[in-house]
Amino acid sequence: MKIPEPTIERLPVYYQCLYRLKENNVVIVSSEEISSRVGVKASQFRKDLSYFGEFGIQGLGYPVTHLMERIASIMQFDTEHKVAICGAGHLGYALARFPGFAKWGFKISHVFDKDPAIIGKKIGDVVVEDINLLPYDLKVPMGILTVPASVAKETASLLIKSEVNAILNFTGVKLDIPESVVVRNVDISHELAVLNFHLMGKPQ
Amino acid sequence: MKIPEPTIERLPVYYQCLYRLKENNVVIVSSEEISSRVGVKASQFRKDLSYFGEFGIQGLGYPVTHLMERIASIMQFDTEHKVAICGAGHLGYALARFPGFAKWGFKISHVFDKDPAIIGKKIGDVVVEDINLLPYDLKVPMGILTVPASVAKETASLLIKSEVNAILNFTGVKLDIPESVVVRNVDISHELAVLNFHLMGKPQ
Repeated sequence: MKIPEPTIERLPVYYQCLYRLKENNVVIVSSEEISSRVGVKASQFRKDLSYFGEFGIQGLGYPVTHLMERIASIMQFDTEHKVAICGAGHLGYALARFPGFAKWGFKISHVFDKDPAIIGKKIGDVVVEDINLLPYDLKVPMGILTVPASVAKETASLLIKSEVNAILNFTGVKLDIPESVVVRNVDISHELAVLNFHLMGKPQ
Repeated sequence: MKIPEPTIERLPVYYQCLYRLKENNVVIVSSEEISSRVGVKASQFRKDLSYFGEFGIQGLGYPVTHLMERIASIMQFDTEHKVAICGAGHLGYALARFPGFAKWGFKISHVFDKDPAIIGKKIGDVVVEDINLLPYDLKVPMGILTVPASVAKETASLLIKSEVNAILNFTGVKLDIPESVVVRNVDISHELAVLNFHLMGKPQ
């Protein structure tokens, strides 16, 4: 069964909501409560979960810890996934230092850059490596692309030759990649554009 | 008429695609061509546009420049929108220097931080201001929140008291904000999670 992309995108949102509920010692939660917290209709929440099985207890709600564990298992938050960052500029540096990844199972294992001034330096507990060492079999499934747009395509190609199968692309450049590689483009301009669209029509 | 959120989110993607087509001197484009470039069904593309009027020429396709201009007008990419960044750490710095915002009408007009070592320094052509100057009427519609999670809520509150009506929130903290303020949360962990989900089941 093909799971709709928006459903997949909402699972981390539900997980984060459950995580906060658990921190606040909530044991059982209704779909309506989750709905109001994450801004998704309760019926949509129930439909999203239905792709993965039965989770709720009739007339009672969802056991917070159990549902968290199930989503963690579906999304593999309970396994470590190594991630290589290409481009240790400000954005790459910020991501390499980001404290929130561990909770989701992500571990920055490599940081690459071409600048001799930072190669060999440590970011957190990762030593910046020379990007010219690529390609080699990194044994890392995911890469984050934070290089300048001018070298985006060639760097993506290096990652793919290094057996990286998924790329989070911050460069704003459309990558030409083989079908076997998964890409997600993060474009902050688009986020601002959507935000601005919602501002229109609001009283200023 | 209520426009679905996914439709709004796809408009910048279409715009970016048209922008590239125009750079390559393409004059007319079919919905199928756009579809294959952005990975959205052609029927969905046509439906998305239908919320805003008639754009295509029967049997011919879409005039690239005209459609670009219409989307720019709908999304107000053709007007300047000022944006204030709170938190000039690595992420805030990277966003303050981001060269791609201008194309979308966004102009970083203020950067705030609490660190005396960077207050008064320039990032691009913006001087970093002391965040303790807030709140005052910034006359800026949008803010980007790149402060540490520990001060996310109080800083969001400062922005709102400074008449900022929309916040792009990178802190990972759920903000408690009035109905009149629009928020979008950008969580890189979620992006990695979705990417990783798509990796599963692929041959490694």
